[in-house]
Amino acid sequence: MSTPDARAPGPADVVALLQRALGERVDTDPAVLRSVRADKSGHAAAGTPLAVVHAASVTDVQETLRIASATGTPVVTRGAGTGLAGGANAGAGEIALSVRRMDRILDIRPDDLVAVVEPGIINADLNAALLPHGLWWAPDPASRAISTVGGNIATGAGGLLCAKYGVVRDAVLGVDVVLADGRLLHLGRGTVKGVTGLDLTALMIGSEGTLGVIVGATLKLRRVVPGETRTLAATFARVGDAARASAAVTAAGLQPAVMELMDAAALAAVHDLLALPAPTHGAVQLTVQTDGPAADEEARAIAEVLRTRGGTVVVAVDAAEGERLLAIRRSLHPAMERLGTTLIEDVCVPRSALPAMFDEIARIERERDLRIPTVAHAGDGNLHPNFIFDVAPGPDGVVEVPAAIWEAADELFRAALRLGGTLTGEHGVGVLKRRWLADELGEDQWRLQREITAVFDPAGILNPGKVFAPAAP
Amino acid sequence: MSTPDARAPGPADVVALLQRALGERVDTDPAVLRSVRADKSGHAAAGTPLAVVHAASVTDVQETLRIASATGTPVVTRGAGTGLAGGANAGAGEIALSVRRMDRILDIRPDDLVAVVEPGIINADLNAALLPHGLWWAPDPASRAISTVGGNIATGAGGLLCAKYGVVRDAVLGVDVVLADGRLLHLGRGTVKGVTGLDLTALMIGSEGTLGVIVGATLKLRRVVPGETRTLAATFARVGDAARASAAVTAAGLQPAVMELMDAAALAAVHDLLALPAPTHGAVQLTVQTDGPAADEEARAIAEVLRTRGGTVVVAVDAAEGERLLAIRRSLHPAMERLGTTLIEDVCVPRSALPAMFDEIARIERERDLRIPTVAHAGDGNLHPNFIFDVAPGPDGVVEVPAAIWEAADELFRAALRLGGTLTGEHGVGVLKRRWLADELGEDQWRLQREITAVFDPAGILNPGKVFAPAAP
Repeated sequence: MSTPDARAPGPADVVALLQRALGERVDTDPAVLRSVRADKSGHAAAGTPLAVVHAASVTDVQETLRIASATGTPVVTRGAGTGLAGGANAGAGEIALSVRRMDRILDIRPDDLVAVVEPGIINADLNAALLPHGLWWAPDPASRAISTVGGNIATGAGGLLCAKYGVVRDAVLGVDVVLADGRLLHLGRGTVKGVTGLDLTALMIGSEGTLGVIVGATLKLRRVVPGETRTLAATFARVGDAARASAAVTAAGLQPAVMELMDAAALAAVHDLLALPAPTHGAVQLTVQTDGPAADEEARAIAEVLRTRGGTVVVAVDAAEGERLLAIRRSLHPAMERLGTTLIEDVCVPRSALPAMFDEIARIERERDLRIPTVAHAGDGNLHPNFIFDVAPGPDGVVEVPAAIWEAADELFRAALRLGGTLTGEHGVGVLKRRWLADELGEDQWRLQREITAVFDPAGILNPGKVFAPAAP
Repeated sequence: MSTPDARAPGPADVVALLQRALGERVDTDPAVLRSVRADKSGHAAAGTPLAVVHAASVTDVQETLRIASATGTPVVTRGAGTGLAGGANAGAGEIALSVRRMDRILDIRPDDLVAVVEPGIINADLNAALLPHGLWWAPDPASRAISTVGGNIATGAGGLLCAKYGVVRDAVLGVDVVLADGRLLHLGRGTVKGVTGLDLTALMIGSEGTLGVIVGATLKLRRVVPGETRTLAATFARVGDAARASAAVTAAGLQPAVMELMDAAALAAVHDLLALPAPTHGAVQLTVQTDGPAADEEARAIAEVLRTRGGTVVVAVDAAEGERLLAIRRSLHPAMERLGTTLIEDVCVPRSALPAMFDEIARIERERDLRIPTVAHAGDGNLHPNFIFDVAPGPDGVVEVPAAIWEAADELFRAALRLGGTLTGEHGVGVLKRRWLADELGEDQWRLQREITAVFDPAGILNPGKVFAPAAP
């Protein structure tokens, strides 16, 4: 019964429709198409997307989604592409919808501690603009110099400061969202309190492009913390000692701004990179920063707790030395890159289970003859084990993670779940963890979540295959 | 085609099924049935429910919901019945499912700052049990001595300390939920960070019994704040001055634990109740409490800001005098009861709009010849206007709010929305605000929310008619 006019639109039709509606904001440059297949995880989608739409306005996003809905074309929303789970990777037959150019700050309201922004603004750029007002937006993923606020929201990003200053879900009051059919919704509000109806703002945070496209956000700001920070580093002979010492800091009622634990392999690799004297064999390091009016006093109290627990403590005499101590932690990723190719993992366990989780990582290393240098946000039980392997990235930086590494990661995830933890503390599920999602959620909850996505996106065109594996568990 | 066996089950059948499954936990005492028709708002449901089930376990809740699902009987979940929006009121043909007896603390984990509780535990009882561990659960609704943690979660409750210590959504890591069909889901997790899948825990918070029955909660605790609190009170000649002064405190980067603004009518009524000398005509009062290591210093700085803004400031010399100052604020409700019958309202606006919102309330009072004494959580822009009227409550404390009062409340809500605010900061929608919900959400979002409730509860047996008015907007 089909006629030429009624045939399903082909890829060329979709691109033509996009070009007619959006002109030169539709990009089909092969190099650009290749670039949006991958993110910072090294994973790349199969095939090449139809087009990249560089949306410059809410209307552009709405136009794109109307065309996608009318033609049944999948849409992968993308910011700066700094994700670590493959959640924004666009492949064959898909439209990559970039909101990176929607990067304006629409309003800063110091009296209300609120900013209204477009999603494509870089986290660090926003904070640079807030600083003259004495304000900041607290979420500080390690990628903050290159990642967008919209991406931070879509992944529910964390960072180093979360234990004291919260995660993204604590710092967003409302989001504007374009649904799959092109309708624009304003979710949440501009007030710090509010309980009208279901909290759809919270539902959008961490939804990784499966519910709608975030085109604006009302952010909850903080005042810049007054005074100087204070930094100290403590070395311990064993990682378990350091983990228990960090728990003792929290148990003493002390709240550092930063508390990072680097295991022996991570510490040795960074020392090597920075041409510092090699640390004592097996030594691990806990780096702590305090801030606020009581920074000095808290640093002294924390140093005391760590010494009591067997740590060798150095307290930075000034901010410059403090920066040098923190630089060791910040050099982790370049140091890992020198060891080989890396799968950066991201599990989170109850703080008290941190020593046990380090034991599990050591066991996996031993049993599988692997190197898994690990750093942890010790204040909140979030670990980043780095699985090192020697398969070089292919063209465009795409990495094929060997099956043996995924098997080891599988053991890691199961250990985290056994310890009462979670698959991902702050990086998201994307494609890389979708096969484990039902293990954590349970099948009933997995199905319920899937049905909720269908309410937002009945045709399933928003980031299909991300977060939720195509086949039900 | 129907036979006697296939007829729809009648009320007596439902009660018989419940009794067979749950024995004496099914209560049909007429006085008990009447008591669950109303909450602290004074509103009562029409008619009398079929039965009250006093669930003692998760299994009891599951049994009740299985019977309700099988027979198509609505279920109204209820804790201590202290709500202010009619959300837990059960009426004709409904089962009132009380979880009040499920009041155990299942686990306190000081190292993880986590407690696991059943929903029926009273907020204050939980905090009494946490105190010996040096811990507390921060949400502090004014009802904390009589309201349940489950109810606090179901309504997304706030309180006096929210501006500094957050609301319920900041203090819940996970909830166990029984769905309409009796299945038990474990939502969220026991870690402070985590982004696996959609944040259904956040969706449950403030869902007012429309998505499922909360049968357990993993709570995020804080350590008890060390040191003494410091309390001060400042009187101002005009409410706008006091509102602007409170904004100046926040703008100065100072963060009081409590900052409460009582307008002239509220202050005069409390002075009368407590037999204190009458305040200067028109005078309003801002009561501020600081806490933590810098309590003294912050109190001094706040006093300075308030004096600069024209306030007459009294700083309490000790904790006892501090308590006397705060007692004035805490005596608001009994003072209001002496003025007449009260509709307690609950709007929230951006902090900077607080003076404008007070102007709107004064305008409504003037134009409609009403008395609306108002108190505000000034630190977060949340106002509680008390509409006074002289219709005495009927039997069982049930109040018929006159149409003229609802018309005035309608103006209040519209003013709050115009100022960028919300219908309800912390009390919820229940039945009393459902007719305004679509005004705030917009029709598209209202319908989307309704479709989400249908995913959880396809037959619509969970608290029907609450939050969402029966007819679509």
